[in-house]
Amino acid sequence: MVLEETKENLEKMKGYGISEGISEIILTTKNAIDKPEKKYNAAPIGIIWKNNKLFLHLFKGTNTRRNLMTEEYFAANITDDAVLYATSTFYDLEDEHFSTVLVEEKTAANKPIATSSKTAAETTIETAAENIPILKEANRYVIFKCLSKTESDDTTIIDIEPVLFGKIRDEDGGKLINRGFNSVIDACVHMTRYEKTKNPTYIDHIRHHFNLIHRCGRKRDKEGLAILKKRLIEIELENGAEP
Amino acid sequence: MVLEETKENLEKMKGYGISEGISEIILTTKNAIDKPEKKYNAAPIGIIWKNNKLFLHLFKGTNTRRNLMTEEYFAANITDDAVLYATSTFYDLEDEHFSTVLVEEKTAANKPIATSSKTAAETTIETAAENIPILKEANRYVIFKCLSKTESDDTTIIDIEPVLFGKIRDEDGGKLINRGFNSVIDACVHMTRYEKTKNPTYIDHIRHHFNLIHRCGRKRDKEGLAILKKRLIEIELENGAEP
Repeated sequence: MVLEETKENLEKMKGYGISEGISEIILTTKNAIDKPEKKYNAAPIGIIWKNNKLFLHLFKGTNTRRNLMTEEYFAANITDDAVLYATSTFYDLEDEHFSTVLVEEKTAANKPIATSSKTAAETTIETAAENIPILKEANRYVIFKCLSKTESDDTTIIDIEPVLFGKIRDEDGGKLINRGFNSVIDACVHMTRYEKTKNPTYIDHIRHHFNLIHRCGRKRDKEGLAILKKRLIEIELENGAEP
Repeated sequence: MVLEETKENLEKMKGYGISEGISEIILTTKNAIDKPEKKYNAAPIGIIWKNNKLFLHLFKGTNTRRNLMTEEYFAANITDDAVLYATSTFYDLEDEHFSTVLVEEKTAANKPIATSSKTAAETTIETAAENIPILKEANRYVIFKCLSKTESDDTTIIDIEPVLFGKIRDEDGGKLINRGFNSVIDACVHMTRYEKTKNPTYIDHIRHHFNLIHRCGRKRDKEGLAILKKRLIEIELENGAEP
């Protein structure tokens, strides 16, 4: 699905915690394979919005990938609760952490009908409804539908589209988590210390964060990266080193 | 000033982008020393809220410290604009990036007055007003007043109190930036990769982020850290290494 990175779309998605680049969310699905006491699964992942395409990049061997090979919908839960992140990365979240939202999909279906003189077709609207798990403790959520699924040896790419937006708690506007933006803050801190101390160990941190900004950042984060790269060359020149 | 970390205070401050632990903001002040074309100064810094005390920890030789030794107020600007962060860390922001808000302070003053028979005292309310610079492009701001200032060899600690809250743009609830929370996300990523690859270089990243969570994180971030530490021990035991 094409979701163009227009100003309007960017603002709308931002309001729900998703930006261009890679947005960190906790993905919840039904468990495709029945587990006795675990109906639902939660795991952190990045929603990728690049070149006007929204997609997931999933690694084989993960529960999320296994579920999404058969499930059609998932929820992207937006939260700044570190405990939910840490727990859902490494452990199963108990079902008590989940509630569900109903997603209805109307499809037009052409059904052949028999009349006295000839066979005609009648268009009927069919409604399919499904309960999708979300995290009770999240601030907001976006329900996504899975479109085309492309498999290679180790990974699966799933194109997705947002179909439903929801707010669980009012007090927070939905925290947008982008590791690229976060890395701008960190790179500023490390570069300030490098400038002061000339300690080359900071360079490893700086390069690590530059890489993250490039990979995960939004347009504005990459503009920030350009300023930081320029400044780093200036610092190196002031130090008399090869830039 | 004592600002207790009660649920009510935490929620209120969170709504304006400040949390317990260390909140990253861009601090703006008037320039204490007149510069021909630079009335205002902006620089990123962390607002520290620990043990019910709100304070700044400033290093000598910085513009921010020099200004706050004489200025009484500053603004904490909350923004997720990476360009503002990168620019204000290393360069002067032009005055066109600033606007100002008026802070009024009413003080009760006892003035001696002369009457025919005796000298009496009359309490009058005096209003002092001052324009404090903020960043036009920020989402929200909090104006703080500087209270006691404590100097040591290299650093200055300034106790502060919030006196005015403002919203510049409606579309975003005021992004709370906490490097401790951000480090929970990063530590989860590095630990997942470490678990999969057993590559010990991830351990350096993991320890770096554990340290940041401990230093900057909120209560919930530190609870997340405890889960991550437990999981790291489990991974090391699974690897057969000394935890």
